[in-house]
Amino acid sequence: MADKPPRRPRAETPKGFRDYFGAEVTMRKAMLDRIAGVYHRYGFDPLETSAVETVEALGKFLPDVDRPNEGVFAWQEAGAEGGDADWLALRYDLTAPLARVAAQYRNDLPSPYRRYAMGPVWRNEKPGPGRFRQFYQCDADTVGSSSVAADAEICAMLADALEEVGIPRGDYVVKVNNRKVLNGVMEVAGLAGDDKDAERGIVLRAIDKIDRLGPDGVRGLLGEGRKDESGDFTKGAGLSSEQAEVVMGFTCAKRDTGAATVARLRELVGGSLIGAEGVAELEAIAGLLEAQGYGPDRIVIDPGVVRGLGYYTGPVYEAELTFEILDERGRKRQFGSVAGGGRYDGLVKRFTGQDVPATGVSIGVDRLLAALHAKGRVSGDVAGPVVVTVMDRDRMADYMAMVGDLRQAGIRAEVYLGNPKNFGNQLKYADKRASPVAVIQGGNEAAAGTVILKDLILGAKIAESATLEEWKDRPAQVEVPRGELVAAVTRMLGQ
Amino acid sequence: MADKPPRRPRAETPKGFRDYFGAEVTMRKAMLDRIAGVYHRYGFDPLETSAVETVEALGKFLPDVDRPNEGVFAWQEAGAEGGDADWLALRYDLTAPLARVAAQYRNDLPSPYRRYAMGPVWRNEKPGPGRFRQFYQCDADTVGSSSVAADAEICAMLADALEEVGIPRGDYVVKVNNRKVLNGVMEVAGLAGDDKDAERGIVLRAIDKIDRLGPDGVRGLLGEGRKDESGDFTKGAGLSSEQAEVVMGFTCAKRDTGAATVARLRELVGGSLIGAEGVAELEAIAGLLEAQGYGPDRIVIDPGVVRGLGYYTGPVYEAELTFEILDERGRKRQFGSVAGGGRYDGLVKRFTGQDVPATGVSIGVDRLLAALHAKGRVSGDVAGPVVVTVMDRDRMADYMAMVGDLRQAGIRAEVYLGNPKNFGNQLKYADKRASPVAVIQGGNEAAAGTVILKDLILGAKIAESATLEEWKDRPAQVEVPRGELVAAVTRMLGQ
Repeated sequence: MADKPPRRPRAETPKGFRDYFGAEVTMRKAMLDRIAGVYHRYGFDPLETSAVETVEALGKFLPDVDRPNEGVFAWQEAGAEGGDADWLALRYDLTAPLARVAAQYRNDLPSPYRRYAMGPVWRNEKPGPGRFRQFYQCDADTVGSSSVAADAEICAMLADALEEVGIPRGDYVVKVNNRKVLNGVMEVAGLAGDDKDAERGIVLRAIDKIDRLGPDGVRGLLGEGRKDESGDFTKGAGLSSEQAEVVMGFTCAKRDTGAATVARLRELVGGSLIGAEGVAELEAIAGLLEAQGYGPDRIVIDPGVVRGLGYYTGPVYEAELTFEILDERGRKRQFGSVAGGGRYDGLVKRFTGQDVPATGVSIGVDRLLAALHAKGRVSGDVAGPVVVTVMDRDRMADYMAMVGDLRQAGIRAEVYLGNPKNFGNQLKYADKRASPVAVIQGGNEAAAGTVILKDLILGAKIAESATLEEWKDRPAQVEVPRGELVAAVTRMLGQ
Repeated sequence: MADKPPRRPRAETPKGFRDYFGAEVTMRKAMLDRIAGVYHRYGFDPLETSAVETVEALGKFLPDVDRPNEGVFAWQEAGAEGGDADWLALRYDLTAPLARVAAQYRNDLPSPYRRYAMGPVWRNEKPGPGRFRQFYQCDADTVGSSSVAADAEICAMLADALEEVGIPRGDYVVKVNNRKVLNGVMEVAGLAGDDKDAERGIVLRAIDKIDRLGPDGVRGLLGEGRKDESGDFTKGAGLSSEQAEVVMGFTCAKRDTGAATVARLRELVGGSLIGAEGVAELEAIAGLLEAQGYGPDRIVIDPGVVRGLGYYTGPVYEAELTFEILDERGRKRQFGSVAGGGRYDGLVKRFTGQDVPATGVSIGVDRLLAALHAKGRVSGDVAGPVVVTVMDRDRMADYMAMVGDLRQAGIRAEVYLGNPKNFGNQLKYADKRASPVAVIQGGNEAAAGTVILKDLILGAKIAESATLEEWKDRPAQVEVPRGELVAAVTRMLGQ
């Protein structure tokens, strides 16, 4: 007997990764192309860095461990195992590569440098439902400008991008806040100073949850702590009720007009210098946006937005979709955030020691695409091809000539290239390809110089509907001279 | 004294990788978009697999070694060091993922499955000049069709794609051959049988080098061996001179017409069954292509094409650009191959045990882009933005409103967002951005309700040219009412 053959390899996507087919690819591409068009109009240039960076350039890793921190996919260069060969890693976002580029090419790039980037990033995390280890990001950043005009510009661009991809005005709002205002409020609440870092972190995270927990939930987290529905207890920041009320006043400082909100914030930050600076910046941003016609129907000052990330240093912004969808339990809820960003410093400082101001936004590609699906506004669907069936395999050249004519006219078309002996399989194939028209030419038609066209979309409609009445003027099948193939298919597709 | 600060990280692209800026990104994208349009018209659907595959699915690795073979970037999943955690790797081409997908989704995909894929692939190789460890591939394959019509279709599609991106007819030729014909010739030369595998490999590689070595060089490799210019000796296949002449007859079997070439090949393969089958396939492909109007001005039968890869089993094809360029030493030479492919079996067999016929082509993205540059036919260049300068930083809202108006009209525009105090820096910035027009509004203009437009392209031309005469009717600088900003810029850009 022969040896047992080796086990065959498994044909499986790695855990947490997925494949994208047909329209999944073209719909995302159509959306990103539209966004790129807006970014281009705003003067942003594309940048495409490689997927691979040195771990040293990416940063954010624990020192003194042999293997880089989890969260990224990393490996050591071959050739010097255990030695000092470089560790390489897949990028986990598009900001870290931008930081490396801004430092590496600092003498050559224009300053300010406006760049956009679109592409996959990788996270070495435990995969879950809807959580993948490779996903797209779509970022735009301005590096080297400390002007709030740069922040205002990105907010306006974000609004334009949302409308461009198909989110109508009124269905979204870009909310703007300023981290300095919050810092001012913290000062007033007695939370300034390095020793209060942990408390400030808890406060930040608590405010970020106000949509989900409500004011009382946030109050709990600002005070001793909060027990959730499952009974789990989250320790709070330990603020006194007076301190907590100062912070709570900030979260609900939004008024009907931007001017009123700014006035209320000015009260809240009292004598804090940093707070006053933040309020002035918000006022300036609102003014710049108004001057371009971006009113509160599109962009609003909203102190409820804090953005979780600790590294923001000034203006922060977030785009929320305000229309309702049904969640997994059938309850109505707002679609929520699809993009966010803000101003950050330290970008290039790790490399050069110099502070370089930067501000930028990241659009959640998958979330925005889901929103477009929910609104029925997705574009880039893949039309099925006209399928020319094969009745007589010796006349393949005739069938190829037919698709040649159709393609010349810009019509998506193909000959059935499987085994033609079972005609039913050919029509099943056309069905699977969502083909709008099947072309048939058997011996009789060939002798008569004609082709038969089957309108598969109409055919499917007739099959669904009990009343043939409405279709009676539109035959699902016609026979036309071969010379009129292209014209007849064009007519059928146009209907 | 404070401790010595830790060394700053290096801001460097990893060795063998590179960054793509601005037009480098958009030009490649424009080319790939055009190719995708052709593939779409031919009924091919996009597929985007993840960058990461299991090493098991990728295959091609040495057994019984701890670390997967070199040539790929691979790492072991965390969590089970040294255990049996999966090894993951970056894909090294787009065919291996297609094989995995064709096996994994074999019950769901249409059959035949026409798919195209475009994206980066990674090779863990020693980088060199012009050799990068991440580069783009652009493939189209038909899986599940054994018909030569599938091969003919891909040849036609390749010709269409080249014309679509800007290679004019006459500047390229798609050469078609058939591996079976070569096998028939080998039989006639007495090189059939498993024990002649090594000799056949040497013969294949020798023929593949005929363009470079000429007939005498190839004869050397078919016989005892060949000493190159540097004195290095390459061992040959050890054929007798009679055997070698049979093979050489094959390499120069091309005649003026396809029919004559086919007739000559039929003589050469004599009584070999496999050879006769290959000749019949070539004849069928030529007939199918003629029926669609693809004559020898676009696609020719050329026995000189063997394609190095051992895994091709039937038709092979290659697109060559026939126009001349100057090489690095200033000598004229033909641009050469930009795409190639052929028919292969074992694609899915590794996974399922079943033979699935497939045929496909891969376009060398960087080479084709270089060819378009050489022909001046590249599209997708990035136009510089109109730059609105900042003369008075208190009037930023006015400048923002100007760019808002320009962008509304679809004109790429931006406000200078750096420190405005040095006006010369603003014009230097506009120059670096290749800005066509600078907009200037100082206090006087603001009071008069006007703006100044500087035509920077014209300005650059005047600066280059000694004779101002030809520009005298076209002022490089105009002052227009603010209300006419958009109309005046549009006029300037249109000139």
